Amino acid sequence: MGLIVQKFGGSSVADADKIRNVARIITETYRRGHSVVAVLSAQGDTTDDLIAKAAEINPNGSKREMDMLLSTGEQISCSLCAMAIEAMGYPVISLTGWQAGVRTNSSYSNARIKRVAPERILAELDKKCIVIVTGFQGINKYDDITTLGRGGSDTSAVALAASLHADLCQIYTDVDGVYTADPRHVEGAKKLDEITFDEMLELATLGAQVLHNRSVEMAKRYNVNLEVLSSFSGNPGTKVKEVVKNVEKTHVSGVAKDKDVARLALVGLDDTPGIAFKIFSLLAKAKINVDIILQSIGRGDTKDISFTVTKSDKDEAKRLLEENKAYLGFDHIDVSDDIAKVSIVGAGMINNPGVASLMFEALYNAGININMISTSEIKVSVLVDADDADRAVQAIHNKFFSEFGGNV
Amino acid sequence: MGLIVQKFGGSSVADADKIRNVARIITETYRRGHSVVAVLSAQGDTTDDLIAKAAEINPNGSKREMDMLLSTGEQISCSLCAMAIEAMGYPVISLTGWQAGVRTNSSYSNARIKRVAPERILAELDKKCIVIVTGFQGINKYDDITTLGRGGSDTSAVALAASLHADLCQIYTDVDGVYTADPRHVEGAKKLDEITFDEMLELATLGAQVLHNRSVEMAKRYNVNLEVLSSFSGNPGTKVKEVVKNVEKTHVSGVAKDKDVARLALVGLDDTPGIAFKIFSLLAKAKINVDIILQSIGRGDTKDISFTVTKSDKDEAKRLLEENKAYLGFDHIDVSDDIAKVSIVGAGMINNPGVASLMFEALYNAGININMISTSEIKVSVLVDADDADRAVQAIHNKFFSEFGGNV
Repeated sequence: MGLIVQKFGGSSVADADKIRNVARIITETYRRGHSVVAVLSAQGDTTDDLIAKAAEINPNGSKREMDMLLSTGEQISCSLCAMAIEAMGYPVISLTGWQAGVRTNSSYSNARIKRVAPERILAELDKKCIVIVTGFQGINKYDDITTLGRGGSDTSAVALAASLHADLCQIYTDVDGVYTADPRHVEGAKKLDEITFDEMLELATLGAQVLHNRSVEMAKRYNVNLEVLSSFSGNPGTKVKEVVKNVEKTHVSGVAKDKDVARLALVGLDDTPGIAFKIFSLLAKAKINVDIILQSIGRGDTKDISFTVTKSDKDEAKRLLEENKAYLGFDHIDVSDDIAKVSIVGAGMINNPGVASLMFEALYNAGININMISTSEIKVSVLVDADDADRAVQAIHNKFFSEFGGNV
Repeated sequence: MGLIVQKFGGSSVADADKIRNVARIITETYRRGHSVVAVLSAQGDTTDDLIAKAAEINPNGSKREMDMLLSTGEQISCSLCAMAIEAMGYPVISLTGWQAGVRTNSSYSNARIKRVAPERILAELDKKCIVIVTGFQGINKYDDITTLGRGGSDTSAVALAASLHADLCQIYTDVDGVYTADPRHVEGAKKLDEITFDEMLELATLGAQVLHNRSVEMAKRYNVNLEVLSSFSGNPGTKVKEVVKNVEKTHVSGVAKDKDVARLALVGLDDTPGIAFKIFSLLAKAKINVDIILQSIGRGDTKDISFTVTKSDKDEAKRLLEENKAYLGFDHIDVSDDIAKVSIVGAGMINNPGVASLMFEALYNAGININMISTSEIKVSVLVDADDADRAVQAIHNKFFSEFGGNV
């Protein structure tokens, strides 16, 4: 008997049958004696349809009005799900973000949850109601509707779980859990029973796309027990926790690929102090996120600095740097976006220095050239040619999960 | 320079082009120096589409959840319209019912507006913003979303006009104004320049379907200047006021037809005191609205009572009366729904006793049989066979508006 927050994504509520399926999962949990708060995304293509409607009228509509528009998607899926649960004979109520007390900052289209005032939800749970809450949205201090941006519904679910002190936060999706690699593309990919927050964070950031990293960060901060599982299969999923039981054995938990990467190289920079600061403070002011940074050893009186950004930031970053060419003092910029980032993640890596070299060995044996390398305590990332990415993932996965029986 | 509330119905915002047209009307009013609050309905078929979605999942979904669902329709049309106005370069903000301060009672799907807290709207108007408000909806004391039922957006507009002390409330629709009869069906129907609240009320109740009677009642109570006009033609519309200038001349303002009528006759009632009270208090308790009531003169020790209800209430009324047959003491119930109500309305009628007889003469000349007659100070209604309804309206219209040059 506990309080469980369950989150269902857009593909889980895409049509009437799927909504009924979600209603079944929710009511079965309720029947087992739990209090249930369910957080829903908009149905399948609703958000895209609404964006298309807006684009027809004004391709540059304000974010404030876009949020007003898009927030209807979750209101529709939640009221429909509530009706499905009513049809099954259970007490239920749907709540919008503002009714559920989700307060955010004012960054329309990409708002951050500041706090959740849980009084209304708690009152409904006290009445033994199942509570369905719209994901992805809240209101700011002006009482205007905001949306949380990509992965927002995961974040909504974790924020509610944290503020309600839920015993468990289940993220239902269309995959069975977190895999050692993308099971749609990598042969031999295995589902993990458990994974740490930190590993999950690296995987989310690296494009594994199971959970949005904002939601994992929040779960880690408030120590929310997370579980990722399928709304279709009924199988046990993957638990995400602070510490996992078999951490000593699991040196590598997964291999991830991210194709949304572009590399910029500033060639022939003056080898003077403070140059890195100048470059990256310029980019930070323009809100361009930089991922991997690599600085060459100085040759003569010049050096090179390379870094990666998302493909959508590439042109803006290049423009900005070229505008400041005189100030920064470089020879030319070299841009490449025909690349991909392939990474291994594992909390056990920190105590096993040989892990990175095994990865490089796998790539060498597959004849794949490495463009850049970046390492952290629980992650090793390499940049490879985009065409080599899938082969790279498979080769690395084989190295760690097949040849060695799943764990180095 | 004043404050103008403009309401646009579902057909006026049905697609992107029509939304742009509405945006043009609003911004032209704003450019002339007025403060503008626009109230919008949901786009064309949105509400029907949402109802169909709900029916697929639960044909008997609670009204509370239906309101949660349906209220998204106006939120979509309002944010889209705001974006259209943004594209034209004007300052604008869209507000939901709760953001606009529309507070209602808790009758989901048919809520009544209790008050409007206009602070937010006034603050936006102070900032020189055009304000777009979702019609048809508000919130109750539990902060749950309610909808206002049929004609709700008209009522929203009038309530906002009243609470904001607007100088004018314009109801934009797909007709040019209020006509002496339905111009789609009656030859020679003429647009009225002005009409009184009372006449408009009778016409709305009688199925002229230009304005919902709740909105007219509210406009009368708070003396809101109403105007009905077309969002497509650009022509002047019909002004609805407490007193119209040419009231002495306008004996009859219009002829209306209502096919949503069923007649029940209780035959062979005991001729005892209190029998009418018994019948109609039973129906009132079941929230069945009774329109025309006719009691025959007693014959021997029995009498008959006939009355009309809407077609949707017919079966429920019959069931209720038959359940109470012993208590009421009648012989049998006679039900007919193959009938229509045809009415003439005019504030000048009260001083012209000959008006009713002219109507009867028109029907006699057209060979149309009258089943029941009901009169009030500004209205005469007759029940005729459904098949005769259109001919009846035309004959009466010819009598008052053609033979006599428009006015008796």
